[in-house]
Amino acid sequence: MSLPFASKLRSRCETSHSVVCVGLDPDPARIPKALTEKSSIEDAIREFCCQIIEATAEKVVAFKLNLAFFEAIGRNGWSVVEDVLKQIPRDVITIADAKRGDIGNSARFYAKALLEDLSFDAVTISPYMGSDSVLPFLQHPEKAAFILARTSNPGGDDFQLLQTKGIPLYQRIAIASLDWDAASRGTVGLVAGASDLHSLAELRHICPETPFLIPGTGAQGASAEDVMRVAGSGPVLINSSRKIIFASSGKDFAEAAASATDVMRSEVAYR
Amino acid sequence: MSLPFASKLRSRCETSHSVVCVGLDPDPARIPKALTEKSSIEDAIREFCCQIIEATAEKVVAFKLNLAFFEAIGRNGWSVVEDVLKQIPRDVITIADAKRGDIGNSARFYAKALLEDLSFDAVTISPYMGSDSVLPFLQHPEKAAFILARTSNPGGDDFQLLQTKGIPLYQRIAIASLDWDAASRGTVGLVAGASDLHSLAELRHICPETPFLIPGTGAQGASAEDVMRVAGSGPVLINSSRKIIFASSGKDFAEAAASATDVMRSEVAYR
Repeated sequence: MSLPFASKLRSRCETSHSVVCVGLDPDPARIPKALTEKSSIEDAIREFCCQIIEATAEKVVAFKLNLAFFEAIGRNGWSVVEDVLKQIPRDVITIADAKRGDIGNSARFYAKALLEDLSFDAVTISPYMGSDSVLPFLQHPEKAAFILARTSNPGGDDFQLLQTKGIPLYQRIAIASLDWDAASRGTVGLVAGASDLHSLAELRHICPETPFLIPGTGAQGASAEDVMRVAGSGPVLINSSRKIIFASSGKDFAEAAASATDVMRSEVAYR
Repeated sequence: MSLPFASKLRSRCETSHSVVCVGLDPDPARIPKALTEKSSIEDAIREFCCQIIEATAEKVVAFKLNLAFFEAIGRNGWSVVEDVLKQIPRDVITIADAKRGDIGNSARFYAKALLEDLSFDAVTISPYMGSDSVLPFLQHPEKAAFILARTSNPGGDDFQLLQTKGIPLYQRIAIASLDWDAASRGTVGLVAGASDLHSLAELRHICPETPFLIPGTGAQGASAEDVMRVAGSGPVLINSSRKIIFASSGKDFAEAAASATDVMRSEVAYR
């Protein structure tokens, strides 16, 4: 019998003493030459991800696979995803960063592909199409869907901050997520970027117990410590992609990723 | 030299005398037994789509592949997409119904995978993450991105109708799309469902020349004639999926799809 998602998350944070999520965004242009010189780009991406996983798995709560980079591999992209997932120890959370969002029947097939067939623990989804595009991702008690609320990219301000009857759109999505979560018993998370601490604090106020997947610390936004201060009263997964996986472009990329993970873990220790 | 998207669309409407877009949503549970009995589900889906294409291609402006159903095939899903695309005559518009939406760098890789590597003519995308999630899809003058504005599913009302400084969110997205289109010179379309004729009319008022991809006629919403009356002053692609591809569950599914396409084409003749 699988643990409910919230229990698995808590358990993994305790085992790893970590809230660090490593984002696997294998941009072919940044894969170390040591790997791309001797094999196809597909093999190089697979090898790169597997070495990063081996070097960092014990230090992280989760790995997040950005499916854009795997789709761009072409017809074998899906099997690279499968191979990479096999390298991740079972108690580490796996997140498909897919940002899917489609009507009911299509959403069910995306959920099947990502949560059942590939057995990801969680998926990121877009809320624009509303409840019937979200609910099919919430049918598995041991899985979760992280719904985009406040994103850390510059364009995130375009619509998410629009006032809707007195509160910004991203807060409306958080409020809706509470209803969806109540109906699905704890399978909802939110994506809440570190670029806007005020929004992050508001979201934690609205959703005190919801797991937050938080990208954008460091270069793009607030420090990891500030993020923990504002959102750490509830469950968090603090994502870092490029800062960890591309910490070195040399042969020592995996060791460098491990060191960068250690630094981040010490900044945002799980308490 | 490839035609700009708007020219290709106009030219195809004139050749086919049609604004019908056939949606390929190959739900395995509804593929005729005649196909699934004698081969794997992957082969049955490929064969099903290819036969539908052969029977209907001359009658349509476009085929729209719903990627959810191809992803759900698993590791060979992408090669089924490739095989199906090869069956579509070059002058018929191909749309990846992907509803992708991610930050700049990821969006670029989705755009590469769908518009360059697979050579789709167009893709559907979600606007929630704002301009830098949209613009990477608008870099090819001969391609287009259909941005979700007003969707035809019940949950479409949840956020799209929220008033934002006096106008609903979906209209704000339409207004933003005009700016994005001006910058990209005609590579923006909108997804505008037939379930809400009032919204469709408003969108046409805001965007008189933008191509609209319109799902949800018939069972879910207004008649095709009503849709043409409200939105037909600008370019439209009227999508029908299940009503055409599952017109018969017998061995005559392809002929039945051709007949259903004929009926729809006569209802919404290209003028």
